[in-house]
Amino acid sequence: MEKYTVTFLPDNKKVEVEKDKTILSASLSAGVYINAPCGGEGVCGRCKVIIKKGNVLTQAIGKLTPDERKRNVHLACASIVQSDLEVEVPAESRLNFEGLSPEEIQSRLRRDYSSSEDVELVQAADAPEKFSHRPLTEKIFLSIIEPTLDDKVSDLERLERHICDVLRVPAVTIGLSNIKFLGELLRSSGWKVTVTVGRRGDFFEIEFMEAGDTSARNFGVCFDIGTTTVSCQLVNLNSGEVLGTKATYNKQAAFGSDVISRIMHAQEEDGLEQLHEAVTQDMNQMIQDLIVEHQVDLNDVTGIVCAGNTTMIHLLLRVDPTYIRRHPYVPTLNFAPILRATDAELRVNPRGLLACVPGVSSYVGGDVTAGVLSSGLYRRDHVSILIDIGTNGEIVLGNKEFLISAAASAGPAFEGSGLSCGMRAAKGAIQKVAINPQDLSVHYQTIGQGIAQGICGSGYIDSIAEMLKAGVLDKDGKLRNVQSPRIRQNEFGKEFVVVFAAESQTKADIVITEADIENLKRAKGAIYAATAILVKHLGFTFSDIDTIFIAGGFGTYLNMENAITIGLLPDIERSKFNFIGNSSLDGAQKILLSADALALAGEIAKKTTYFELSVESAYMDEYMAALFFPHTDLSLFKSVKLL
Amino acid sequence: MEKYTVTFLPDNKKVEVEKDKTILSASLSAGVYINAPCGGEGVCGRCKVIIKKGNVLTQAIGKLTPDERKRNVHLACASIVQSDLEVEVPAESRLNFEGLSPEEIQSRLRRDYSSSEDVELVQAADAPEKFSHRPLTEKIFLSIIEPTLDDKVSDLERLERHICDVLRVPAVTIGLSNIKFLGELLRSSGWKVTVTVGRRGDFFEIEFMEAGDTSARNFGVCFDIGTTTVSCQLVNLNSGEVLGTKATYNKQAAFGSDVISRIMHAQEEDGLEQLHEAVTQDMNQMIQDLIVEHQVDLNDVTGIVCAGNTTMIHLLLRVDPTYIRRHPYVPTLNFAPILRATDAELRVNPRGLLACVPGVSSYVGGDVTAGVLSSGLYRRDHVSILIDIGTNGEIVLGNKEFLISAAASAGPAFEGSGLSCGMRAAKGAIQKVAINPQDLSVHYQTIGQGIAQGICGSGYIDSIAEMLKAGVLDKDGKLRNVQSPRIRQNEFGKEFVVVFAAESQTKADIVITEADIENLKRAKGAIYAATAILVKHLGFTFSDIDTIFIAGGFGTYLNMENAITIGLLPDIERSKFNFIGNSSLDGAQKILLSADALALAGEIAKKTTYFELSVESAYMDEYMAALFFPHTDLSLFKSVKLL
Repeated sequence: MEKYTVTFLPDNKKVEVEKDKTILSASLSAGVYINAPCGGEGVCGRCKVIIKKGNVLTQAIGKLTPDERKRNVHLACASIVQSDLEVEVPAESRLNFEGLSPEEIQSRLRRDYSSSEDVELVQAADAPEKFSHRPLTEKIFLSIIEPTLDDKVSDLERLERHICDVLRVPAVTIGLSNIKFLGELLRSSGWKVTVTVGRRGDFFEIEFMEAGDTSARNFGVCFDIGTTTVSCQLVNLNSGEVLGTKATYNKQAAFGSDVISRIMHAQEEDGLEQLHEAVTQDMNQMIQDLIVEHQVDLNDVTGIVCAGNTTMIHLLLRVDPTYIRRHPYVPTLNFAPILRATDAELRVNPRGLLACVPGVSSYVGGDVTAGVLSSGLYRRDHVSILIDIGTNGEIVLGNKEFLISAAASAGPAFEGSGLSCGMRAAKGAIQKVAINPQDLSVHYQTIGQGIAQGICGSGYIDSIAEMLKAGVLDKDGKLRNVQSPRIRQNEFGKEFVVVFAAESQTKADIVITEADIENLKRAKGAIYAATAILVKHLGFTFSDIDTIFIAGGFGTYLNMENAITIGLLPDIERSKFNFIGNSSLDGAQKILLSADALALAGEIAKKTTYFELSVESAYMDEYMAALFFPHTDLSLFKSVKLL
Repeated sequence: MEKYTVTFLPDNKKVEVEKDKTILSASLSAGVYINAPCGGEGVCGRCKVIIKKGNVLTQAIGKLTPDERKRNVHLACASIVQSDLEVEVPAESRLNFEGLSPEEIQSRLRRDYSSSEDVELVQAADAPEKFSHRPLTEKIFLSIIEPTLDDKVSDLERLERHICDVLRVPAVTIGLSNIKFLGELLRSSGWKVTVTVGRRGDFFEIEFMEAGDTSARNFGVCFDIGTTTVSCQLVNLNSGEVLGTKATYNKQAAFGSDVISRIMHAQEEDGLEQLHEAVTQDMNQMIQDLIVEHQVDLNDVTGIVCAGNTTMIHLLLRVDPTYIRRHPYVPTLNFAPILRATDAELRVNPRGLLACVPGVSSYVGGDVTAGVLSSGLYRRDHVSILIDIGTNGEIVLGNKEFLISAAASAGPAFEGSGLSCGMRAAKGAIQKVAINPQDLSVHYQTIGQGIAQGICGSGYIDSIAEMLKAGVLDKDGKLRNVQSPRIRQNEFGKEFVVVFAAESQTKADIVITEADIENLKRAKGAIYAATAILVKHLGFTFSDIDTIFIAGGFGTYLNMENAITIGLLPDIERSKFNFIGNSSLDGAQKILLSADALALAGEIAKKTTYFELSVESAYMDEYMAALFFPHTDLSLFKSVKLL
């Protein structure tokens, strides 16, 4: 297909795109972020750009004034590239990422470009299931009929009667703290009060009451608590709007990088308390930052939903996790009751609720359930796979009839942790890498266009694939003896220099060592092997799979082709891949906004079988076979052509 | 009918009884308390006495040895008086009342003599409704199947599954405190645990868990919280056995004698807290005394049921009672949710539950609901009345079709409070009085045969009736100018000396003043008028009433004839009266032992109409007419013949 070069001004960023791409799509490839709140649907008219040179095919959608048309202003989402172009992106059309976390940027981008075909291999997901709006906590304004001598029902029964009418339920529960001064509140407010009602499983509970109508101010937060990374969103519980997103490394990492070492630490004196405090500090800080940024009163934050792996949920709730790692690997809980947020020392409204997404087993937690919910895998006719690439790699295979899951200990490599120059997908992280096979020159792109600080997961995938393709890395993960300043010996083996000190923010070389490659090889091997064994276990081959959903904290970008090249993902039709980002956080958000989604998560967790890989001897064989790039059995990776 | 004199030895107490009474019955009349745990059924063989002189007709019931028969030992319950008798009551056959409260004595007596025909005018109540044994809290021992690799359900779900199986319910709720170390508890106990499950309305909650089988040790307490008197029972929740009973004056009396003055005090600074503390101190002290006496561990006390008037329940729960006395007289709550006992600062197991008996309105509380439940009035075909004579006099009229209630402010006179020589029905209280019309000599009987300390409610009723019959008191409540050392002028009017200083424990005369009589007249007038107006309001006359249940803290004894003579009770067939003692405490005990009884109490409370006397002009007329002994309209009291 014909290709054109699009140059974005004033950045002077160039990108080569196929004809028929939109300017919006091209801008993403170029790393120029254009504001398109409607997601490129052509309805908001915000993504205005000026065509300085070249031709575009523009849909007329009535968002431009005659004056703008005269000045050659176009909507980036509605303009198809027809030649080489020079495109000016005015300041008012840019996404302002100043002060935003990478995850927030990621989230905005995903929303903005969800219909863009340019995010590599990202498929349009199935139309997501619409859950009815039944948030965990709801504020209901009541104008109550005053008592008279003829209607002397007590204050409490009067209130309950009114709420039950509104909610159409036979009963609500209420605690003593709300009853104590109910009489005073009702009368001083002129019998006009706002009641915050929580959904606690099968029944409704009155959480707290306020005088007057405060129903417009009701917010919640949802979390994905990962072993390595904790992500958080602030959500308007009335509108469902996501106000902001934050992420941070889990402070528990100080006590070990994987769940096993955390569990071991929890058994030490004060260990459980230390782990609990570490993660809740992170969570409370993010809540605090979000409410300050969005000018939300902490008292108006009334509900929290947490998705996390089983160990993370135990530690959040200060529940002894010891038995997760003792035969026969049974956790204390997979289904936590709905609690008060303060039970876990989370600081929101003191009467606010906390729901944890139900998990499947000790090693397949609520984060996976939330991911299955988010992906829609559970309701598809055809068999699909969800691969959640995190410190623990979890795989779910199934359709609307059945779900089976497995977990592989991948380590935090793909989250950029535990590697010599690894970092999280945050500003300055190298996320895209290309290596010129001729001179081994490296072209890279960082998140937020910052000066390179380190390499994140997608950058490592690209780097290894590119090194393999350039012939400097062998299938076993050893760097070849190629004469180049980029390949050199260090104390423990060889290393490849991605960015020389002069160009790096740390003023030190950014390198990938053979030890890093070994680490990444084990991580990809564990995930591939687990996926392959699940597929085999059910008598399928990869060609039987309809869709593979890839979830994880890779930022905005994951190069599926390179992920196949290194053997992380199976070599199947590219259109079957669907990169869905942090599906755990997305599922948690759905659950925060709908009790139906929570109930569904429970059903998914109950329905999902757990397949224990550690007792499956075939798994070790599969894993050993996967400890090559892409695989010892090259017939499985026919499309991968390496030297 | 022929009468015989029975003399009890070594007390040398004499009593004149009709032929065909049992010795057990005679002993009660004589104030000699014989132990008869089976209630005089002839099955326990404990009430052994020795006939020293005279003849009895003895049923042979095989409880005596040949040697005992030789020594003329008989069972008091099975021996009918046939002549004048001298009966020795050996120490081992006596009820030991040392260290027992009067209410405990009363309770024991009621149990022991419930089949005795001698307690004046007490009718055998209807066979009480049998409620299924479903106590507020239940201890369930579980032997749980250990997890294996093939059965990896989490600890919590495993526990829940097992409990739900046992309880045959779909779900139970559980709080975080029980989850935290569940894993450790299950394993250290070898998967054998005792779970205390509470009934919280429609759902079950796991309150706490213990290793091993502790299910044999489960206790509860029930309270009747009166404005003047607080009564308490310790109950074995497994067997339903009442282990002990206590009563005390409500310390809140320091802040006013009636509910109105308590509510006023509650509005003062710290007033609510002071009132709350006063009553909970009383309650905690009684619990403490009972568990020490009966060697019960406080941790094994897992449930509390409180019956009390609406103000008492508000104060117990620290709920602002202000609006009870403000137009339109609506309380904050009639139906309290089931709470934790610690919510009200009651000291039992910290996870123990507290249920308050549902009330009808601001002035007809859960004590009345409990009384209706206890009396069985709610399920009778014919129309009956319950009169609960307390500081607030409550009346309920109805049958299985309808229930209507009213409240009359009687003051604490019948509880012995607020009178010059009044006292509670406790040891040393004069409870029976007879006056010789010839010489005005006074024969009296005290509770526990102690030296006279004061006069309790039933003693006042007797005294006034006897003064009326002796012609020293006119119908208006004024003492006549009769020449006698017993009638004399004091500072404010006349007074009648019941016991001279020499015979009294206080070494002061025990007197009844005209002010006392006025007080008692208003109390009886208020109760009679309220009863009469309810009867009229529904178009009945007293002759239409099938049964009148009299409840209140009169101790063991209430002379119905005298109560009619003074015009407290209506002049109807004596067999229609049924003295049921503290029916509020009895109802609370039933509710403690059966969730069905609690549900029924709720139905009773909802079904009961409240009839507001204060807005009924006819009530004042009726009350004024009742301010005479027995009444201004003597045609209503035809059987009362006074000089």
